[in-house]
Amino acid sequence: MTSSDRPVSRRRLLTGGALAAGGTVVGAAAVAASTRDAARPAPAPEQVPVAATVGAATEPFHGVRQSGIVTEPQAHAAFVAFTLRPGTDRAALGRMLRLLSDDAARLTQGRPALADTEPELGLLPARLTVTFGFGPGLFTAAGLDERRPPSVAELPAFPIDRLQPRWSGGDLLVQICADDPITVAHTQRVLVKDSRPFATVRWVQQGFRRAAGAEPGRTQRNLFGQLDGTANPKPGAPVETAVWIPDGPDWLRHGSTLVVRRISMDLETWDLLGRTDREFSVGRRLDSGAPLTGTAEHDEPDFAALGPDGLTVIPDFSHLTRAHVSDDRFRILRRPYNYDGVPAADGTADSGLIFAAYQADVEKQFLPIQRRLAERDLLNEWTTPIGSAVFAIPPGCPEDGWVGQQLLD
Amino acid sequence: MTSSDRPVSRRRLLTGGALAAGGTVVGAAAVAASTRDAARPAPAPEQVPVAATVGAATEPFHGVRQSGIVTEPQAHAAFVAFTLRPGTDRAALGRMLRLLSDDAARLTQGRPALADTEPELGLLPARLTVTFGFGPGLFTAAGLDERRPPSVAELPAFPIDRLQPRWSGGDLLVQICADDPITVAHTQRVLVKDSRPFATVRWVQQGFRRAAGAEPGRTQRNLFGQLDGTANPKPGAPVETAVWIPDGPDWLRHGSTLVVRRISMDLETWDLLGRTDREFSVGRRLDSGAPLTGTAEHDEPDFAALGPDGLTVIPDFSHLTRAHVSDDRFRILRRPYNYDGVPAADGTADSGLIFAAYQADVEKQFLPIQRRLAERDLLNEWTTPIGSAVFAIPPGCPEDGWVGQQLLD
Repeated sequence: MTSSDRPVSRRRLLTGGALAAGGTVVGAAAVAASTRDAARPAPAPEQVPVAATVGAATEPFHGVRQSGIVTEPQAHAAFVAFTLRPGTDRAALGRMLRLLSDDAARLTQGRPALADTEPELGLLPARLTVTFGFGPGLFTAAGLDERRPPSVAELPAFPIDRLQPRWSGGDLLVQICADDPITVAHTQRVLVKDSRPFATVRWVQQGFRRAAGAEPGRTQRNLFGQLDGTANPKPGAPVETAVWIPDGPDWLRHGSTLVVRRISMDLETWDLLGRTDREFSVGRRLDSGAPLTGTAEHDEPDFAALGPDGLTVIPDFSHLTRAHVSDDRFRILRRPYNYDGVPAADGTADSGLIFAAYQADVEKQFLPIQRRLAERDLLNEWTTPIGSAVFAIPPGCPEDGWVGQQLLD
Repeated sequence: MTSSDRPVSRRRLLTGGALAAGGTVVGAAAVAASTRDAARPAPAPEQVPVAATVGAATEPFHGVRQSGIVTEPQAHAAFVAFTLRPGTDRAALGRMLRLLSDDAARLTQGRPALADTEPELGLLPARLTVTFGFGPGLFTAAGLDERRPPSVAELPAFPIDRLQPRWSGGDLLVQICADDPITVAHTQRVLVKDSRPFATVRWVQQGFRRAAGAEPGRTQRNLFGQLDGTANPKPGAPVETAVWIPDGPDWLRHGSTLVVRRISMDLETWDLLGRTDREFSVGRRLDSGAPLTGTAEHDEPDFAALGPDGLTVIPDFSHLTRAHVSDDRFRILRRPYNYDGVPAADGTADSGLIFAAYQADVEKQFLPIQRRLAERDLLNEWTTPIGSAVFAIPPGCPEDGWVGQQLLD
């Protein structure tokens, strides 16, 4: 239904329906969109709806560090992993990343890409970020194997893994995030098209979190209903320490490392568990996310506390116990997205988590946690890693540069 | 990243990040969510962000007519088609629809379903609607073939069709729409689970439009970049006439008919077309959506206007010409969603449109348009119908009733 002939109602004002006529629009895209609606009555300035910023809001592309990492997670994501074509050498990689960086620089700011065939779809950035990651194969293709950080490699095999090649590996990763799903789809299209001379698509994982404004400022819930990300390092020094590579070669300084795991969640058997058993598995209350020894999500868990039965209140096999890290230097920044595919005929869900975690050092941060979880995390009963990949995250680039320039130029 | 320890910044206020502490929260879900954050500083009342209504906003479930039809389209949808199990007769259908209606009545109002195993995911309605449709097989299963409206049947075959069984048919349809993708996923999960004794999943089509608040009050764009839905009947009498069945049997009065077509869009060849050729194909400008004889989206097209070459300005083969209907009685209410699957290794997109159109009478409204389009619509070059289904949409139900009761009880 179109609404151009409808009177401006209170509801439309509230939901932003009358923005286009407002004088106080935010951002170039909104201005552009408003030019053909001059006839609409203007709302009073104090009624110009905040919701309109969802489409026009931008995140920076250029800078010392890439966006999309400590950026407040957007509602939608597509993780696109490429396999480089045989002829894509260091020089070709340079051309490719120059082109993709330019696409990203434009689209993130609400401007169509240079060769954009659907330019109208490039006008709403909706906090779009495009984050590049380099897999092991990229270093080989560039003849730069000696510069590959040792941890940028296949993870060691864990007994819980059931990895599928279709969700694993990749020479180049593009993480596309925005608060609008059309913006993600269009950006994915542009970047995949412009990559064609250089690479093929290895896998794409599309995921979602709560919509922008739906549950603001809250930890996300996964499709098990659990709060997911409570233990993330806090903004400021803790996240600085955990995420960013502080030294090492120039081309990695202000960079990071990304682990992407596709984790299938067995809703069928999880749904058979009682609430108490689930809370024991997680080590937290499902409603508040509080540790079983606390009352609020961010209470410190007391692993020594004993219950009336003489056992620890938080079981040793709980996810919380196994995943717990108290030292910020060893924490990881989780930035996961849910996925929900099409259920089977019998109703079996195809649901899970695109687990994406950033850290300065996979060996010191991700792997010790993962080893403890693989060894004895009761949640393993209902979750199965089916995909795995690791990428070096290069630093950002200045306006006249491109991502990866320090490595490849 | 969690943000509970961050100071309340202007940015978080704008995006709704500080809602949980506000006194002016809207809706039960928001109230529930706020109880464990009493320690956060409260924003001044005038700063309580409008965006917060995205999660708490509700659409009615009970009423004379079903919601999700003339409802302003939400950002996300899952169309779930079921095949009834052999034993599902009229009495079982009654039990099934009583159960699913109860689930829908609760979830649409931000309350978990009765047997909800993830109740925390049921608290944010985000304008959730659940709309039920009855396919031909439902009438047969209920022993009520004589009550099936003749148009609720497979559509006649069109030469342009390349229909796949995996996207076609269905005995019962549930259209789930909400502004939040987790709400859609959770609702799909609950309804699929509660359907298990009665039915198997035949197909699920998941789609999206612009995010809530991203481009408020505007006609949606599809992934070709076209405005899609400009010619919808206008609110008020036109939409009344076009959508709702005004007479006939009680069980269909205030009902409607839904056609769902899955239309694959060939972005590869479309992207090779120049802008002028695209605009000729569509009959409209791509930027404004204005007919080629006009300047604004809702200008009436002038099909007789001739260009300097003596040909009509709007070509006879254009989508606009072939789809045009001037009489409201013969219009259809388009309520489409985009889909964007995973591209092939060579980058070929799996993109298209879940075309969903409501009308009082398929024979008089949808079919004449479709015949004209199939005969000579240039857009057929780049679009292919790969799925098709038709459903009778029964009226709504009162609080003590369930959808379909007038037919099945």
